[in-house]
Amino acid sequence: MIKVGIIGVGTVGTSVAQILRDNANIISARAGVDIVVKCGVVKNLSKHRDIEIPLSDNINDVLEDDEIDIVVELMGGVEEAFEVVKKALRSKKAVVTANKALLAYHRYELQEIAQDLAFEYEASVAGGIPIINALRDGLSANHIKSIMGIMNGTCNYMMTKMSDEGVDYDTILKEAQDLGYAEADPTFDVGGFDTAHKLLILASIAYGIDAKPEDILIEGIQNVSQEDISFAKEFGYAIKLLGIAKKDAEEVELRVHACLISQDEMIAKIDGVMNGISVVGDKVGETLYYGPGAGGNATASAVVANIIDIARSGKSKPMLGFDKPLEGKLILKPTDEIESKYYLRINVSDKKGVLAKITKIFEGNNISVETMLQRPATSHSANLLFSTHIAVEKDIQNMIKEIEALDFVNSKPVMIRIV
Amino acid sequence: MIKVGIIGVGTVGTSVAQILRDNANIISARAGVDIVVKCGVVKNLSKHRDIEIPLSDNINDVLEDDEIDIVVELMGGVEEAFEVVKKALRSKKAVVTANKALLAYHRYELQEIAQDLAFEYEASVAGGIPIINALRDGLSANHIKSIMGIMNGTCNYMMTKMSDEGVDYDTILKEAQDLGYAEADPTFDVGGFDTAHKLLILASIAYGIDAKPEDILIEGIQNVSQEDISFAKEFGYAIKLLGIAKKDAEEVELRVHACLISQDEMIAKIDGVMNGISVVGDKVGETLYYGPGAGGNATASAVVANIIDIARSGKSKPMLGFDKPLEGKLILKPTDEIESKYYLRINVSDKKGVLAKITKIFEGNNISVETMLQRPATSHSANLLFSTHIAVEKDIQNMIKEIEALDFVNSKPVMIRIV
Repeated sequence: MIKVGIIGVGTVGTSVAQILRDNANIISARAGVDIVVKCGVVKNLSKHRDIEIPLSDNINDVLEDDEIDIVVELMGGVEEAFEVVKKALRSKKAVVTANKALLAYHRYELQEIAQDLAFEYEASVAGGIPIINALRDGLSANHIKSIMGIMNGTCNYMMTKMSDEGVDYDTILKEAQDLGYAEADPTFDVGGFDTAHKLLILASIAYGIDAKPEDILIEGIQNVSQEDISFAKEFGYAIKLLGIAKKDAEEVELRVHACLISQDEMIAKIDGVMNGISVVGDKVGETLYYGPGAGGNATASAVVANIIDIARSGKSKPMLGFDKPLEGKLILKPTDEIESKYYLRINVSDKKGVLAKITKIFEGNNISVETMLQRPATSHSANLLFSTHIAVEKDIQNMIKEIEALDFVNSKPVMIRIV
Repeated sequence: MIKVGIIGVGTVGTSVAQILRDNANIISARAGVDIVVKCGVVKNLSKHRDIEIPLSDNINDVLEDDEIDIVVELMGGVEEAFEVVKKALRSKKAVVTANKALLAYHRYELQEIAQDLAFEYEASVAGGIPIINALRDGLSANHIKSIMGIMNGTCNYMMTKMSDEGVDYDTILKEAQDLGYAEADPTFDVGGFDTAHKLLILASIAYGIDAKPEDILIEGIQNVSQEDISFAKEFGYAIKLLGIAKKDAEEVELRVHACLISQDEMIAKIDGVMNGISVVGDKVGETLYYGPGAGGNATASAVVANIIDIARSGKSKPMLGFDKPLEGKLILKPTDEIESKYYLRINVSDKKGVLAKITKIFEGNNISVETMLQRPATSHSANLLFSTHIAVEKDIQNMIKEIEALDFVNSKPVMIRIV
């Protein structure tokens, strides 16, 4: 019998205990042993929970119990959780966590400490989708050329609704908050930080690359307006918040931002709160993984899968996918050297010579226009829409600054990268 | 160092050797050991191959070489391959195979013989998509409610082209044959047998159910005409060949046939030669796995992933996903008790009273019509199109027989199940 301690019995923790109870028969058949929750650690013992497991408000009732084989960390946060899982590992317990922030900051230290102990974290990226499993095991024969992921259901819900119903950003954000999809302070989701945490985890498995959130380009969806969504749709694109990892020779670029993406791509077809991750391997080509990225049961499904895996085999895989360092280590591409095609929307007063001045600035910054379109915005202003050929990030940023300074430009130009 | 012997160095075998050579650096970092091909067994030693590995035409140079740890069976066929892998296992070698037919017939015997030896077969279902991995490990916490898979690229290519280009079945079959997607005798693909082999493998992992191809409903796409594709499209459906496994209480139904499926479903959006498998778990909900189902490199990607997994851990998982039998074993639902909605196209001579007679036969067989539509076919005949409410397979089959016997019915009614 395998005994589990759960630290943090909120939505996911409750679901973990429920799955281990509801599906005990099939789980035991698959794992070859029975798996039971010996203790759940909570802050408030008197709060009602939809599960009957022994509870304690003393974390040491899990960490210091020699009978407990696996510690499931669901308390959230970074530093406190880090201390807890370190202590668990030092007590020779296997650890399962759903904590993406913990991993975004401390995954390499944890790998070092874990050594021969199992440390699993399937639920930390894209909830119920077994993407860690796929990337670490299923695609292990490949050099990964790229990863493009819709990994935040809140943002995808908002982008989908804006596209389907023509509502504006603020309206849909309020709706997402009312439905409980977005927090009162939505910055962590809509600012791209949640997606960035997940991307960093995937990038370690794909490339063995150690980066922190502050090392990479992170933008959110806050500047995507209904106008951009409508224009994109008209020209056969969807707008999605993507986490992107891309390898080019010995450099890896990591970035999170809204993207225009052709509606023909499978990942553009992923709508609503669902998540999806496209992975291109040098040998296999493109594979894509789709499913629910959040929710108690979906997340707990991944947590319990990790528990079963540990019950079956102890530890069988290197935590971050590499059993020894990769020769000729890959390096992180500086943010301002990233290359992309760009969509630009520039709102200008309707005056003579406007287009000539703007295109001159394009030229001065080595930006080559692919398509251009002018549309009236109000009676005295127009939207100039551009798509560019491949350009370099720092050139685009310079160009935007110069354009913004022009007196006939009414607001900061909107820039969305095209993939 | 792990040494591999490859039995059968055709397209996939060559790709396996190439990947182990081309990606040796990253594979060695991921596996923690170097992996080399010690011997490839071929029938014809003089044939040119795009890889330099030691070759032999004597299978015992692999099977009886104590230095070879892993035997990769890529010879194809059923009984001869069965003898070969049995001999490999008896020589205490791990086995990796891409042979779906072998597994469709002998997977439980192989599991019995393998015992503590690793026996892996990721490439046998949906080529490069790590679906075995996902189902056996990633979703192991779930009772699987259903599996619906597009697992034959040839059929999906044909259905997609018929839908996109309005060409008829025979034209597109010829094109698929010219492109090398379909065999000269295409029955194995278009008749649904290839999909059935794959479905049986997935059903074992999901349900622990032992069935052979002859135990389940297998139909192909041969009766799907351009007319049906067009009608389906008009009403918001795609037609796809699906392998379906579904659990209902203690019964499991397994079936392969063309399906009408709403264009809104993710699986309906999988086009061309690509494969995709939707899996619904009781806890996680729907997840979907998409990618290339065939081709040397894609298939070899899965074979090499299995080799890496074995190099990492020996054996860590029960071959078919169950470490001990499931209590309250599930049973296979008899084919004629399967329930579904149905689409029917009945070509009739344009006479009075036709509709009354046909609907009376519907009624007499407990079939309730959901929608009905009449369209002229030629100047003297019409197509009657029906969709039914949920009905039972044996009732539909009886009804079709009765309708076919009517003198004003010009050909066997076309029936396609709706999912």
